[in-house]
Amino acid sequence: MTDTSQTADTTAGTDTAGAPEAGSGGPSRRGLLTATAAGGGAGLALGAASGALAARATATTPTPLSELGAARVPFHGRHQPGILTPAQSHGLLLAFDLAPGVGRRQAAALLRRWSETARMLMDGRTPEQDTGIALDAGPSSLTVTFGFGAGFFEATGLTAARPAALDPLPPFSADELDPDRSDGHLWVQIGADDGLVAFHALRALQRDAAETARLRWQQSGFNRTPGATARPATARNLMGQIDGTNNPRPGDPDFDARIFVPGGSGGSGGSGGSGGSGGSGGSGDHPGWMAGGSYAVVRRIRMLLDDWERQPLDVQERVIGRRKADGAPLTGGTETTPVDLAATGGDGRPVIAANAHVRVAAPDSNGGAAMLRRGFSYHDGLRDDGAPDAGLLFICWQADPRRAFVPVQRKLDRGDALSAFVRHEGSAVFAVPPGAPEGGWVGQQLLDGFEG
Amino acid sequence: MTDTSQTADTTAGTDTAGAPEAGSGGPSRRGLLTATAAGGGAGLALGAASGALAARATATTPTPLSELGAARVPFHGRHQPGILTPAQSHGLLLAFDLAPGVGRRQAAALLRRWSETARMLMDGRTPEQDTGIALDAGPSSLTVTFGFGAGFFEATGLTAARPAALDPLPPFSADELDPDRSDGHLWVQIGADDGLVAFHALRALQRDAAETARLRWQQSGFNRTPGATARPATARNLMGQIDGTNNPRPGDPDFDARIFVPGGSGGSGGSGGSGGSGGSGGSGDHPGWMAGGSYAVVRRIRMLLDDWERQPLDVQERVIGRRKADGAPLTGGTETTPVDLAATGGDGRPVIAANAHVRVAAPDSNGGAAMLRRGFSYHDGLRDDGAPDAGLLFICWQADPRRAFVPVQRKLDRGDALSAFVRHEGSAVFAVPPGAPEGGWVGQQLLDGFEG
Repeated sequence: MTDTSQTADTTAGTDTAGAPEAGSGGPSRRGLLTATAAGGGAGLALGAASGALAARATATTPTPLSELGAARVPFHGRHQPGILTPAQSHGLLLAFDLAPGVGRRQAAALLRRWSETARMLMDGRTPEQDTGIALDAGPSSLTVTFGFGAGFFEATGLTAARPAALDPLPPFSADELDPDRSDGHLWVQIGADDGLVAFHALRALQRDAAETARLRWQQSGFNRTPGATARPATARNLMGQIDGTNNPRPGDPDFDARIFVPGGSGGSGGSGGSGGSGGSGGSGDHPGWMAGGSYAVVRRIRMLLDDWERQPLDVQERVIGRRKADGAPLTGGTETTPVDLAATGGDGRPVIAANAHVRVAAPDSNGGAAMLRRGFSYHDGLRDDGAPDAGLLFICWQADPRRAFVPVQRKLDRGDALSAFVRHEGSAVFAVPPGAPEGGWVGQQLLDGFEG
Repeated sequence: MTDTSQTADTTAGTDTAGAPEAGSGGPSRRGLLTATAAGGGAGLALGAASGALAARATATTPTPLSELGAARVPFHGRHQPGILTPAQSHGLLLAFDLAPGVGRRQAAALLRRWSETARMLMDGRTPEQDTGIALDAGPSSLTVTFGFGAGFFEATGLTAARPAALDPLPPFSADELDPDRSDGHLWVQIGADDGLVAFHALRALQRDAAETARLRWQQSGFNRTPGATARPATARNLMGQIDGTNNPRPGDPDFDARIFVPGGSGGSGGSGGSGGSGGSGGSGDHPGWMAGGSYAVVRRIRMLLDDWERQPLDVQERVIGRRKADGAPLTGGTETTPVDLAATGGDGRPVIAANAHVRVAAPDSNGGAAMLRRGFSYHDGLRDDGAPDAGLLFICWQADPRRAFVPVQRKLDRGDALSAFVRHEGSAVFAVPPGAPEGGWVGQQLLDGFEG
């Protein structure tokens, strides 16, 4: 990779991403490039090698990048980006399988390449031999997040380092899982506030994978464009429901303990954790290389929108337990008012039905389990049966899925009125290692020493 | 449809869409609603009928919509929106077939319903029995555009009113057309700068179609998010190429004559044109009801990105005839410098190769044919063969495809070096009638008098 920065005016920029990333700031926060003579525009770095896009353009007058385009999220830090980063308007989920015969050495080299590419792209720079798809564009809050699936450890013989938390999920009654949209050795989550920036990152990372890993599945999703809504905090899903009101927030008591595996080096130093042999040494039964990491459960949840939209508003609201217009509980107040699960109506029956989603999913019915939901809606056109192929790419983050996603989903599976309107069509669990410190790469704590 | 506007402060708003729509301004330009007490947020109108979302929310403090969210495009005008409107970041293309037995009377009623829904949604208001998906969001430059395919006239017995310009396109050698992604009786083009606003419109329009028309195909695309790039004028496609430099612009000589069918009432009056019987009376062999309308050719063009990205930059640039970095011709200058097709290099050979895309597609090699290209990139994940299912939802607008798209594509088909890297997988031609005047509906010039 060539790292020749564009000769550009560097203004004292603001990192507008607003991402509550802990840990190192570093060079990716150093400011926003503004466009100058080279015609490509801001954020464009020009590879010096032959074959790369050369600085041959004559002067044009590009307009400055807006806050949206210029926003940049740091790659380095205690946690990987794309977990605490506010969800972007475009999401691409990629699962790769290692090619037959590929071992830990090649896998380590791939993670190092991927980390370098992610770092450059998130910084608004351009790899050598670039496709050019994102030329002229700013980083647009691009994030790239890497994870390991259970199969990775089998394929590389690293079974001693495999987290027990990657054990297969139990089956659920709403499951109609498609193996071609499930699992995978490696996971890459791409998010950006621009569709071409996200697609550009996909092609660059796929090129890096080359002969080492092959794309197993790829799914695309979206969220609101920044500025399109007057409600910045909580999004709506494709059922029209405000979704995510009770999401834990950084600063909540026990937030870190619920979302991230304890321990870790806090972003300094090169190779924390227990190193390449990493089996024990972690918290609970989490291996040491996962300290500061998190587990992602990814579910493709199709919504039966034709059925759902046939329900009158009052039925929809009873299914959820909240008002559709503003997300307030049916027991009153505003979106953030706690649900009064004990309240009864004039008829003496509970206002919140026994099978209302908000009751069944309530954190206090689940022993305090909490997970950070950060998904994307998806819409892949029409199914053969004429129904919309649309719903939610559900992604949740937790310190241990066996104490968060699994018990919550078990309860929903037994008693959630919403279950009749959804089908789970894809499923995967990934161990997402901590963020890379300056000079390091993602997965280094697991794979360091194997790299050639 | 209930049309009860929210009791909201109405500020003297600015129509920020910047769309060069001619004709009537009207109520859709009257200003931007700002959110007040009702919790839903800006742009939300509340249906008065039971079952609609009621104004039960208590006060919250929504943030104001940004320029992006508040931007609104007029529905009424001489031309339909979505033609001259700057391309939005999200596009949804829908083709419907009339249900068996449906005649012109039900078709007319559908076009009236669709027009009313489009008008409300583009104005930032909410139909009755709404899904709620776009609550809290502003119109976000939503446009809805309606067209008629050749099959519509057969199905309704209106063959005398069928434009000859809807004759089937000739076959081309890069065609690998899928009938399930081609043709259709009715076409709906949705564009918006927010994904949920676009999806919301799709569901509302599909509900309107009810038993009258069934969705035949649906395709989704995207363009840059406003503000993501420093180059606002010309977009890049998924090959990384700046695409659309030579697009005609309003104000160019003969722009209107090349893009729109001559004649028409200029937006005043209710039922211009030749009325329901509409056969002759138009310009050339265009029926009178098409005066002020345009023809859209829609092609799903898959890009063979794996092959393309394997080509070195200089090969890619010779295929196109332009520099990738800035879109300038290989004969020098900037993006907008005219291509010097006669220039020769030091070796005496033409700088722009005989089969370079820019030479073969050059307007002056096509007898002055011009069309307005306004497409969307698409990315539908992985194909079974592992290649990306991605490319361009090519949409071009012209007064007559027989004098624009067809001769240009014939030339490209014979000699364009780019053809080796693309496959045309879907194709359709639609007659897009003029815009609806105040109080009118789209298609009224064709169908008025048939409606019950």
